[in-house]
Amino acid sequence: MVPVVVVHGGSGKALTREEFCKLGVQEAALAGYHVLQQGGSALDAAEAAVIHLENNPIYNAGFGSALNELKDVEMDALIVDGRTLDCGAVAAVRRIANPIALSRLVMEKTNHVCLAGEGASRFAKAMGIKEVSEESLRTEYSIKKWEEARHFNEDSGEESKSGTVGAVVLDSKGDLASATSTGGMVKKMVGRVGDTPVIGCGGFADNLVGAVSATGHGEAIMKVTLSRLVIFHMEQESPCLMPHSPSQYPGRAHLHSVCTSLDILVKLHALLKLTQPLQKKKQNLNLFTIYLLNFTDYM
Amino acid sequence: MVPVVVVHGGSGKALTREEFCKLGVQEAALAGYHVLQQGGSALDAAEAAVIHLENNPIYNAGFGSALNELKDVEMDALIVDGRTLDCGAVAAVRRIANPIALSRLVMEKTNHVCLAGEGASRFAKAMGIKEVSEESLRTEYSIKKWEEARHFNEDSGEESKSGTVGAVVLDSKGDLASATSTGGMVKKMVGRVGDTPVIGCGGFADNLVGAVSATGHGEAIMKVTLSRLVIFHMEQESPCLMPHSPSQYPGRAHLHSVCTSLDILVKLHALLKLTQPLQKKKQNLNLFTIYLLNFTDYM
Repeated sequence: MVPVVVVHGGSGKALTREEFCKLGVQEAALAGYHVLQQGGSALDAAEAAVIHLENNPIYNAGFGSALNELKDVEMDALIVDGRTLDCGAVAAVRRIANPIALSRLVMEKTNHVCLAGEGASRFAKAMGIKEVSEESLRTEYSIKKWEEARHFNEDSGEESKSGTVGAVVLDSKGDLASATSTGGMVKKMVGRVGDTPVIGCGGFADNLVGAVSATGHGEAIMKVTLSRLVIFHMEQESPCLMPHSPSQYPGRAHLHSVCTSLDILVKLHALLKLTQPLQKKKQNLNLFTIYLLNFTDYM
Repeated sequence: MVPVVVVHGGSGKALTREEFCKLGVQEAALAGYHVLQQGGSALDAAEAAVIHLENNPIYNAGFGSALNELKDVEMDALIVDGRTLDCGAVAAVRRIANPIALSRLVMEKTNHVCLAGEGASRFAKAMGIKEVSEESLRTEYSIKKWEEARHFNEDSGEESKSGTVGAVVLDSKGDLASATSTGGMVKKMVGRVGDTPVIGCGGFADNLVGAVSATGHGEAIMKVTLSRLVIFHMEQESPCLMPHSPSQYPGRAHLHSVCTSLDILVKLHALLKLTQPLQKKKQNLNLFTIYLLNFTDYM
């Protein structure tokens, strides 16, 4: 089977950042792909791609994360192994460089799925992960965004689009993995857990169906458990991607934005399902670089 | 529509606790039902029933919660409003009496879905919720269980059955709600987040489909996003309750136990779906008391 690496990451609407952002997701996809070429698993590749984006200050994950109401960095991440449905997550974790790597350690070295806050820091320390300072995770841009934002605004398009990076990988054995990481929303409350570390919301992977890594307004994604919903519809091969039309739910203000994200995700993951046919058409089409900076690219 | 209150709660295998446990869930179901009789919503009733169980030292939620590796209490809770899919959760929260009430405040007073750890405590303080001491949440029984357990053991039947309380309610308007609360597993790692506060895992409610409150081994429930899975299958009216047989997933050690929980949950929720026919058969059958202490009661 021809391996596929799909990476997403947004950097906000600022035009001067767009080209950097495109370059970053391309590099991350390549980083993941190189891991596969060296015999790594889908899980290794997804982790490597996301670490690449966490280390890149242009993205809202790891170094460059959005700042919370107290101007601190609290990060969420999730990794899922499609072979076994095993998963690992960290929520509202502070002072580490690579939350996705810690998520993988939660999956592999504990009997738990998710560790939050100080418990996650405590585990990081036990695993020998270097603690970094709050300052080292901040960037000029994240401070600027914090100063511009009067308060957390769930309807802010820019904040919600400048979030979350992720990767889904299909390796040559047919194994799938999903990895997602974020600094969350600007001026979010201390301790806020978004969709990213929540299995079935921020991501999911099942070798028998597909892999998903979500991005968008976390609270809206959580309401509909978006990643699990996408997997469910992939499983059913259902043309109807939402169980109900938004009009059936008065007061569900966010459902439309979720539908929009869903369209993108399904297109994104349709790529994984179409790998073999696509290969027949275009021999070198074994690496996809997805960026959700500009939705029109994939709409 | 005739309202229905379904409550679950386990107290461990100790026979001397069984009768107390039965009494507790009956009282909690009645507490929820009285709220409905006074004109309260499904959400009000589900919250009231779970508060009743959190305040009862026999259950592993609120007062009486299982103790973590450091002998402290860290609690998880989730409430879901079936009218809007709105939800609120707290994860690894300390030193409060009623995590389910704080979850509802997260849902109603913030733009977020979930607050974890110190952030949740900070929010509780801002909402004027009284902080209680660690000691006040411990019981002789929870200390005894901690001392008996050499370490956290995911395969321990007793720990997993002595967890989590929950309620699903259908009110006379046809609105559904789900509420779930737990102290988690004995000797769990600091910061461990189980299935309970994770939307789609510990609970879900959708007026158009049904309501679920899950109990069992959290890490296994999370793998399959159990509550959302139950809702999917209720929606599809599918006789096949698991998407794949366990044999298709080598290494999925926990799938069998999840299947078992699923059977129970589906039977439990079948009660909600069958309310009207049951009413025709037995006029006073408008209050169900479910306890998962002894699975054979509903198998």
